Amino acid sequence: MASGGGSPGAYRHVILAKLKEDVPIEKLQEKLKLFAILPSIIPGMKSFHWGIDESVLLKHKGYTHVFEATFDSMDDISSYYEHPGHLAFANQVSSVVDDYIVVNYKPISITNQE
Amino acid sequence: MASGGGSPGAYRHVILAKLKEDVPIEKLQEKLKLFAILPSIIPGMKSFHWGIDESVLLKHKGYTHVFEATFDSMDDISSYYEHPGHLAFANQVSSVVDDYIVVNYKPISITNQE
Repeated sequence: MASGGGSPGAYRHVILAKLKEDVPIEKLQEKLKLFAILPSIIPGMKSFHWGIDESVLLKHKGYTHVFEATFDSMDDISSYYEHPGHLAFANQVSSVVDDYIVVNYKPISITNQE
Repeated sequence: MASGGGSPGAYRHVILAKLKEDVPIEKLQEKLKLFAILPSIIPGMKSFHWGIDESVLLKHKGYTHVFEATFDSMDDISSYYEHPGHLAFANQVSSVVDDYIVVNYKPISITNQE
């Protein structure tokens, strides 16, 4: 098992996506309804939210859309990848997403401990 | 003012970074101590946490390190960019970071409303 793969705790699943040029917001929102049901059918999948970059500095490199979910563990993320509900969602969004980056990490808080 | 720039609410500031090849974790952690003090000196800057991608699927495109902070508003993020504390931090991390992506967004929760 990979380091940390089975350890409990809240893991963040972060996706940055470039959409295809001609995708209207309504079409994206329609696809996201498929995602909305996943936390209720996939064990270990918790909150999900998304948003659109509003930066004025434009450091997004074209990855303007963000999707974040929280899972209990890396094992839950692995199970999620293989879940039929996720596969159906991934198949649907492939028609609107041009490219994407995914990172999964366990958040570490920093405190100032001089 | 940009759309949503002045509206209150929790905004997410997400950075995905590629580190330079020879950066030891200890050196990164040393730099992050500079970041840790920012929420205490920058108005509107709330929680901060970070982590390292643990994905087995390797969809990170080299952006293996994630840094996330929460701000009250987009205006607070703009103020943060210009704050001397942030400029000092940015100057320090430039020695360890090879490339990065930044997105700032207001999280939208999705509920299944069939």
